Amino acid sequence: MFTAAVLGATGYAGAELTRILLGHPRLGRLVLASTSAKGEALGAVWPNLLGLGRGGPEPRLVDPETALADPAIEVFFSSLPHGHAERLAGPVLARGGLFIDLSADFRFGEDEAAFHAAYGQGYQFPELHRQAVYGLSERNRAAIAKARLIGNPGCYPTAAALGLQPALAKGLARGLVTGRGIVIDAKSGVTGAGKEPTRTTHYAEAADTLAPYKIGTHRHAPEIERSLAAIAGAPVGVVFTPHLAPMGRGIVSTMYLPLARPTTVEELHALWSDFYADEPFVRVLPPGSVATNREVRLSNFCDISVHLARGGETAIVVAAIDNMVKGAAGQAVQNMNIALGLDETEGLRSLPAAF
Amino acid sequence: MFTAAVLGATGYAGAELTRILLGHPRLGRLVLASTSAKGEALGAVWPNLLGLGRGGPEPRLVDPETALADPAIEVFFSSLPHGHAERLAGPVLARGGLFIDLSADFRFGEDEAAFHAAYGQGYQFPELHRQAVYGLSERNRAAIAKARLIGNPGCYPTAAALGLQPALAKGLARGLVTGRGIVIDAKSGVTGAGKEPTRTTHYAEAADTLAPYKIGTHRHAPEIERSLAAIAGAPVGVVFTPHLAPMGRGIVSTMYLPLARPTTVEELHALWSDFYADEPFVRVLPPGSVATNREVRLSNFCDISVHLARGGETAIVVAAIDNMVKGAAGQAVQNMNIALGLDETEGLRSLPAAF
Amino acid sequence: MFTAAVLGATGYAGAELTRILLGHPRLGRLVLASTSAKGEALGAVWPNLLGLGRGGPEPRLVDPETALADPAIEVFFSSLPHGHAERLAGPVLARGGLFIDLSADFRFGEDEAAFHAAYGQGYQFPELHRQAVYGLSERNRAAIAKARLIGNPGCYPTAAALGLQPALAKGLARGLVTGRGIVIDAKSGVTGAGKEPTRTTHYAEAADTLAPYKIGTHRHAPEIERSLAAIAGAPVGVVFTPHLAPMGRGIVSTMYLPLARPTTVEELHALWSDFYADEPFVRVLPPGSVATNREVRLSNFCDISVHLARGGETAIVVAAIDNMVKGAAGQAVQNMNIALGLDETEGLRSLPAAF
Amino acid sequence: MFTAAVLGATGYAGAELTRILLGHPRLGRLVLASTSAKGEALGAVWPNLLGLGRGGPEPRLVDPETALADPAIEVFFSSLPHGHAERLAGPVLARGGLFIDLSADFRFGEDEAAFHAAYGQGYQFPELHRQAVYGLSERNRAAIAKARLIGNPGCYPTAAALGLQPALAKGLARGLVTGRGIVIDAKSGVTGAGKEPTRTTHYAEAADTLAPYKIGTHRHAPEIERSLAAIAGAPVGVVFTPHLAPMGRGIVSTMYLPLARPTTVEELHALWSDFYADEPFVRVLPPGSVATNREVRLSNFCDISVHLARGGETAIVVAAIDNMVKGAAGQAVQNMNIALGLDETEGLRSLPAAF
Repeated sequence: MFTAAVLGATGYAGAELTRILLGHPRLGRLVLASTSAKGEALGAVWPNLLGLGRGGPEPRLVDPETALADPAIEVFFSSLPHGHAERLAGPVLARGGLFIDLSADFRFGEDEAAFHAAYGQGYQFPELHRQAVYGLSERNRAAIAKARLIGNPGCYPTAAALGLQPALAKGLARGLVTGRGIVIDAKSGVTGAGKEPTRTTHYAEAADTLAPYKIGTHRHAPEIERSLAAIAGAPVGVVFTPHLAPMGRGIVSTMYLPLARPTTVEELHALWSDFYADEPFVRVLPPGSVATNREVRLSNFCDISVHLARGGETAIVVAAIDNMVKGAAGQAVQNMNIALGLDETEGLRSLPAAF
Repeated sequence: MFTAAVLGATGYAGAELTRILLGHPRLGRLVLASTSAKGEALGAVWPNLLGLGRGGPEPRLVDPETALADPAIEVFFSSLPHGHAERLAGPVLARGGLFIDLSADFRFGEDEAAFHAAYGQGYQFPELHRQAVYGLSERNRAAIAKARLIGNPGCYPTAAALGLQPALAKGLARGLVTGRGIVIDAKSGVTGAGKEPTRTTHYAEAADTLAPYKIGTHRHAPEIERSLAAIAGAPVGVVFTPHLAPMGRGIVSTMYLPLARPTTVEELHALWSDFYADEPFVRVLPPGSVATNREVRLSNFCDISVHLARGGETAIVVAAIDNMVKGAAGQAVQNMNIALGLDETEGLRSLPAAF
Repeated sequence: MFTAAVLGATGYAGAELTRILLGHPRLGRLVLASTSAKGEALGAVWPNLLGLGRGGPEPRLVDPETALADPAIEVFFSSLPHGHAERLAGPVLARGGLFIDLSADFRFGEDEAAFHAAYGQGYQFPELHRQAVYGLSERNRAAIAKARLIGNPGCYPTAAALGLQPALAKGLARGLVTGRGIVIDAKSGVTGAGKEPTRTTHYAEAADTLAPYKIGTHRHAPEIERSLAAIAGAPVGVVFTPHLAPMGRGIVSTMYLPLARPTTVEELHALWSDFYADEPFVRVLPPGSVATNREVRLSNFCDISVHLARGGETAIVVAAIDNMVKGAAGQAVQNMNIALGLDETEGLRSLPAAF
Repeated sequence: MFTAAVLGATGYAGAELTRILLGHPRLGRLVLASTSAKGEALGAVWPNLLGLGRGGPEPRLVDPETALADPAIEVFFSSLPHGHAERLAGPVLARGGLFIDLSADFRFGEDEAAFHAAYGQGYQFPELHRQAVYGLSERNRAAIAKARLIGNPGCYPTAAALGLQPALAKGLARGLVTGRGIVIDAKSGVTGAGKEPTRTTHYAEAADTLAPYKIGTHRHAPEIERSLAAIAGAPVGVVFTPHLAPMGRGIVSTMYLPLARPTTVEELHALWSDFYADEPFVRVLPPGSVATNREVRLSNFCDISVHLARGGETAIVVAAIDNMVKGAAGQAVQNMNIALGLDETEGLRSLPAAF
């Protein structure tokens, strides 16, 4: 049994972490922390979770400082905005805790310049970034198992890396793909925009609307480039365009890979399905099926389908995740399971609903 | 560990039964049956459930007759259209099995006339109806525990009965309500219309549209009247209007109860919360909160909020359920748990997501 | 040709007034005013209206004071929040202008107490309220024709009054209805909540969710009571419950009228269809059809269907409008047409789309 | 004044043609024809159009043969499935009528092989295809003005051609783009799938879901290739992937054009805005804005925004249309206006709503 805390439990990622952790069979105690809602009952903040104190008082949120000072807490998840985790992680690590950050703070490793370019601020504690592991579970499992500080990947970067990993890790060497001119056209549900109400997330303007945004400027672009380059072992040429789609959850990334030589759907499918044969959370769909967010909703699955474009010069890879689960809280719990030596699927086995 | 079969696994209720049962910790073996899809792999019929055969072949659907002939299956859930279960239940009961029907076949007890009026057909096996228990878990728990044949309530009747039960079981005797002139204005998501594609369920016509339907003629009206009368111990005067709302899951029933004397929100709230104090799946919200389907989605909860109308002459009760879970498959599994003597919440503890 | 100004052109009602007025064949010049966006180009504020200055500069918004000081403007529409119009109307009236207010400021006539109870503030210029006409076009046409100051009805009150008017104006005298115990269960799209982004209007929480709100406390309740009492010539007992539905536009009000004597659907239908026989914007549907917001979207129609509940003791009236058109900007333009002596349907003839 | 008929008035394109034509100021008489609904009242088929016979009987649908035999009808729109128009057009042309087909029958000119490859059938009347003009208004205006037989473009091909036209007509010659490796990632609302209810269009499965489909096999791909090649004067290398988005109307195409040399957003914007400077229905958005279907809904506009990808090697063009208007019925009416010598914007001036 483990004891965990969620720092930033009132945001969307925090709510999702709370929901998943409360269903984790190994959870001993869960402490929820929030600056803005300290002292409030959980059911008042998240009515979906009302009544968990049945037969006793409702759990109440505490101040993050209170949680950090609690020596019994072994695992800290931070879903605070970027810039906070870097400040909080040090003391947790110093006393042997595990710190998993869902913001961008620890996603760029020692490349402070890249982080600065994307987020407009530098590192305060450079030594922390030397220890931080990029928490893409299906790539960095060995490092995550030994990590005490994990930078959980962004939602778009997770879908992109899982979808393209077989091509870049194996397909380059086989002369199948060029690694240049890759287009990632990604569509996200509105939960990806976070809880803050804005004109963009207003139902009346988001519903019934498909809107590309931040073309050429989204902060996940450098994270994607960095992640793909690490997989390929060389820089990868990629164009990334995010879209806001009128749906709650989910990312569907349609990715276009120029081929270096003729191939078949069968060869493509074999490459992807062999690569992920042993992964519990990646499903490579049978040829002819197409990945969508519907089939992975509320689960930790990443569904991937692989296609050949008309003309045969381009492979099309579709990767679908629930942005709040595999793209955030689910992968964070998966990483915790790995780091704590638990079965990787514990607490993450709930099946997606069909509708 | 129990062995179960789902007859009609390709419909919406069947898919939901499958999803819930696959997550039930006491499930030994699950047999999925369908006339139309026999022989198909589960992941081909329901791609959300793809890959459950990981490390082995995908489960395949069988013919209902095959399932019925399997002597190892103890529990049969039927989500076939009305008219089928009555034909299939007898042999299962004869060999000591448990039969839970999600159609209307066993909801009307011995009142064949009422069933005939609503469904246009009579009983073929009248003796079965003497044994059948109406599976409203929070009302008939004792009888369900001893039942071998359960008629699982309709979705609208579940929301109505759970919302009104305290008023009719206790409020009448206290002189609080009249039991006459009750209005049930119910809104359902489109999954309630079933899987068959029709013009009504076409996205282009269902989206962005709130549509009352079958006003004065819906088949759930007689079931509601019968269920409420049983609770009240006398006929209850009720007007029921269903609406199709542009959402996937959920029923929100807004119910108007004429009061027989002045009261307060506090008295109302106390009546409801005392009544349901020990129920694991009914949450009476604190005064000031309003029940919605959002907070119960994909869970077996029924949320209820109680209000006093301006003027004070009418109580307003809002009951919210997930129509596919508490309104169908979840309540069926709850009833199975009761009938098998398991913990009533087994397999039904997954928490609703906040969004 | 008339010259008009919209005060508060950046809100949702202002945007809709702008759209409708720009298509009005009698419009000479339109001045758009906003405190927050003065000086901005129309296409920057409302990109849907981009390019109207083709072949010339884009129209730009001005300060409300500038508009009010322009002696050539004959008609002022105010969609500013309540409390503003009362301050601005006087000078416009003084110079012979027409002032149509879409807020609540002029909806309560001389009943300052009722306004104060609902909106928490009193009248600053009581004499204005003696002149104000309640702009329910289908009821007060004669008075509107002579008015210079019009309080445009709220969206919920419009649907309620149009739906119930035949019953209260004719049915009471015929002994058909009682005028007591009327239930108005109203469902509105999210545009009704206005442009301000809030947690309630956040797509991630509004989508897929049907939520009653402000039960017993909504500010439109007293307006509805007042409007219905005026029609009936006596107080009417009514319970009003608004719901937020996951759709952009539209109000569907399902209304339950206790009957004083037995009747038939045919008698009910005849009463409603005779009453509205000459109305260009009210469509009483043929028996068996049900009114929905889908069929009136983006039009000034109010669709009404009339039904008899099972048991025959209650009539059910469904009224559907586009809350932004007939429930706000469209009715305002209709009132302007009446007050200016134009054809009442000018600028309002666009047909609803089927999907 | 012109007299027109819509053949196939009960489908989605037919409904939209009917709505638009009924608001056309030059319309004399409109005849609606349908095999399946002949004899029915318009308001029964399309309740949104109920009541147009106010003060007289409702218009009734006739058999297509009846319409074709009416010598007073000058303009025929056919929204029948492909394969029908080819059979019907000849006699209309023979007596001097104008025939505008919204199916694929006349989109491939004399290239019977391409049509056959996509639609699995050949030409019955090859001589008709010599006369047919591809009705992309903004490209073929001169030919359309003289045409009597117009093949109205598909929805995806319209968005693609309008978005890419400046690049292919001017940018190739300027050495700006290569014309190879173009990716068209297109997202369509569900109305694009037509009125036939299917599992794909079922609300419960289409809502909240973003689904690529027919990857590499969609029938619009060869039409797009043909249309772009005609613009470029040479074959163009293009990959086209359609997606079904959870919205009613609209296509948003995000298109990726490899650049042949460095450029700036300003150069790109100037190319597009100069190219379309005189077009009444194409709006090139100011730099920094992004085209979405929301801003063009229910209008004949095509909004285009042009962007430079991070890295500068790819131009990104976003084109947004209402698939039912500019992508079908609106463009058909625009073509009719051109062919009849009317003002091209007649009947098409209604402004998009902001929400």
